[in-house]
Amino acid sequence: MTRQELIAQIRIKKSFLCVGLDPDMEKIPKHLLVTEDPVFEFNKQVIDSTKEYCVAYKPNTAFYEALGVKGWTSLEKTSLYLRTHCPNHFSIADAKRGDIGNTSSMYAKAFLENMDFDAITVAPYMGEDSVVPFLGHKNKWVILLALTSNKGAFDFQILKSGDKTLFTKVLQTSMAWGNAENMMYVVGATKTEMLSEIRKIVPNHFLLVPGVGAQGGSLAEVVKYGMIEDCGLLINASRSIIYASSGTDFAKKAREEAKRMRDEMAALLR
Amino acid sequence: MTRQELIAQIRIKKSFLCVGLDPDMEKIPKHLLVTEDPVFEFNKQVIDSTKEYCVAYKPNTAFYEALGVKGWTSLEKTSLYLRTHCPNHFSIADAKRGDIGNTSSMYAKAFLENMDFDAITVAPYMGEDSVVPFLGHKNKWVILLALTSNKGAFDFQILKSGDKTLFTKVLQTSMAWGNAENMMYVVGATKTEMLSEIRKIVPNHFLLVPGVGAQGGSLAEVVKYGMIEDCGLLINASRSIIYASSGTDFAKKAREEAKRMRDEMAALLR
Repeated sequence: MTRQELIAQIRIKKSFLCVGLDPDMEKIPKHLLVTEDPVFEFNKQVIDSTKEYCVAYKPNTAFYEALGVKGWTSLEKTSLYLRTHCPNHFSIADAKRGDIGNTSSMYAKAFLENMDFDAITVAPYMGEDSVVPFLGHKNKWVILLALTSNKGAFDFQILKSGDKTLFTKVLQTSMAWGNAENMMYVVGATKTEMLSEIRKIVPNHFLLVPGVGAQGGSLAEVVKYGMIEDCGLLINASRSIIYASSGTDFAKKAREEAKRMRDEMAALLR
Repeated sequence: MTRQELIAQIRIKKSFLCVGLDPDMEKIPKHLLVTEDPVFEFNKQVIDSTKEYCVAYKPNTAFYEALGVKGWTSLEKTSLYLRTHCPNHFSIADAKRGDIGNTSSMYAKAFLENMDFDAITVAPYMGEDSVVPFLGHKNKWVILLALTSNKGAFDFQILKSGDKTLFTKVLQTSMAWGNAENMMYVVGATKTEMLSEIRKIVPNHFLLVPGVGAQGGSLAEVVKYGMIEDCGLLINASRSIIYASSGTDFAKKAREEAKRMRDEMAALLR
């Protein structure tokens, strides 16, 4: 998906919501456990009920890998379902991969070719040759970790080198590897006080923002400091939407929560 | 596997060789492509022919994921084969994972519980709560990326914060999360000039050292600056062993190359 296509969807739906598809067998509704593929059934119903209100979906690979071959099968089915039933939604493999060049190429094959996701999240620690293999795919995106939403972000990401933090260096250095048409950055909603600084460095890139919802970040704050003319934001919510109810009404409740967030976004969208 | 068990194996075999199981469908011998599971068949024959000369195996997950469900099946079969046929070999899932706490727990379940690997490689960028979930498993190990073997290591890992490089900070900070009985560090063989400095910080931890072989690092140099009383080194070679021949004699040639490296190691082991 191109940047212009993504922006068009945001304008049409008045939404910049990304729904995280993180199916945990201990949390998905009990009545689904008797189906052949509970994880895929759960995802399918969440997707069907929320797609009107969001512009992106983001399965996190950990939740699928924890289920072994069966989980990987569910992930492939989910990616195919997104491709066929939601061709106008931006799809993100939240995989946080990154390895030496020939190995990163293999990950790119897995997620951007075989499963045909629009984007993959990548960890920056191993530098340029670990990231570039993901950038050679037409209309595909790298979403590079910059400033994450968790407490551990303070261990290394804000270390100062000269007068610049590590995540600032990651932003500045990686901008030369791609551009605002094929790279985004992960910036946690729990760190909004740093968004103004980040926007000075990457005024035009989209930011994928986790941490609104279950992790406690504020949507209004993110918009205030992070929104640009082209919106430039994808706000992810996972648990607050997909686990809005643990009963047979989970899809309905997920839809209500997605709509609630969309309405909040519609009011904030400039 | 415990540290003492690993050290005992190193002494018995006079080897600290780790064989990387990175099966690339374009490189594995053509005659295997007609078998039901070429990747597993390749791994099985490599393992059977080299196990006398190495103490560890390290499948890199990228090569399996690039093949989808079939690849993940081959990875599970490989992990089971290692568990049942090589119980005295240290097994490493080279996955380079790392995510927020509840997500890292899912990766730990996938690799340290379900597939029962002894260790998993983890990327440090997201800090403590992304690493600690891997450390709660008895006799299991985290192998944290410190200074990697690729060119991109110079982008961020050697940035100075005060008088310390980022990888030095990673070593120092992470030492508080675990200990030399459940953590190792990845240090590339292409950066031997920094090994003395690293040994001052982590005098007792095992180091997993990629980059000898196809990437050009020197075994003698690694030993000179990195070996400790308990050996403290696992030297990985992947391509130089598993692709020593692309013909029907690949297992024999892999064995010869593993033996050659073991003999070199035996002479260097103090």
